Amino acid sequence: MHKGFTLWFTGLSGSGKSTLSERIYRRLAAAGAKVELLDGDEVRTHLSKGLGFSKEDRDTNVRRIGFVAELLTKHGVIAITAAISPYRDTREAVQARIGTYVEVFMDCPIAVLAERDVKGLYKKALAGEIPHFTGVSDPYEPPVAPDVRVDSSSEDIAVSEARVWALLQDRGLIPVSW
Amino acid sequence: MHKGFTLWFTGLSGSGKSTLSERIYRRLAAAGAKVELLDGDEVRTHLSKGLGFSKEDRDTNVRRIGFVAELLTKHGVIAITAAISPYRDTREAVQARIGTYVEVFMDCPIAVLAERDVKGLYKKALAGEIPHFTGVSDPYEPPVAPDVRVDSSSEDIAVSEARVWALLQDRGLIPVSW
Repeated sequence: MHKGFTLWFTGLSGSGKSTLSERIYRRLAAAGAKVELLDGDEVRTHLSKGLGFSKEDRDTNVRRIGFVAELLTKHGVIAITAAISPYRDTREAVQARIGTYVEVFMDCPIAVLAERDVKGLYKKALAGEIPHFTGVSDPYEPPVAPDVRVDSSSEDIAVSEARVWALLQDRGLIPVSW
Repeated sequence: MHKGFTLWFTGLSGSGKSTLSERIYRRLAAAGAKVELLDGDEVRTHLSKGLGFSKEDRDTNVRRIGFVAELLTKHGVIAITAAISPYRDTREAVQARIGTYVEVFMDCPIAVLAERDVKGLYKKALAGEIPHFTGVSDPYEPPVAPDVRVDSSSEDIAVSEARVWALLQDRGLIPVSW
């Protein structure tokens, strides 16, 4: 029916990872896929409680998500992850272990994120009140060659969803009839 | 072909969890099952690095293993776990989340474990040199109603394996033809 693979979203807070990943998740589930969404909150509760925001702790968090995604992928499940995953070498290490891995880079300009500021975090971070805020006071290393690049400031989410979906079909990971 | 379920081994260090769980794992894999063995070392490296031996840390470790086993079970994979998992309430909480859960209690007398002492740990623990050693200087709460109870001091491992296998077949979790 479908292959096991990992669909890995990466990008800054507020860039649309959760929104787009949930749309893809629901569409796959509705089509009857074996699919699991490892969203940030679930992961923090079950895998990474107690970790902070140092590079080491962020990497540990990302590697744990990667370990679970790897197990699911290996057994034919579609694993969707939506963590910031700011460090390039860590994403690449996870990708190398998983094998069948599709990366979606949510590449929204920081000016737009700060303008939207849904959770009020960018304002605080830009005022220097949040010491390890990715993209402001902590690094974000963009993917060099993501499979899909989405700028949620300029692209309608239905278009982004269609582009991701078409790529999964082009790669033979899900049926073209879906 | 087979159901998704978790086969959960619990018991003291040296009681035979790894040996028996590996035999069951290899037999399932040879039969073509989707099966994953979450052994202690793999889990420590990928999920629980940095955790210690307090009740809270042990519980966190067991809940993380349970979380991964739950995801695998939900998607039709057989998850086999072989951690000491000393606390009854934590095992029961994990069982409640997983649902399809078979518990194997490795119930080897501590006198025999101390006599064998493969890793030399019981001698040190009994001499008071290891502060949190399960069964000696840290609690182990035996299951009240395990699905299978194995005393590896008196039972041949081939018999234990056959008993676990037969139970999985009786429960309709794996085919009787296996």
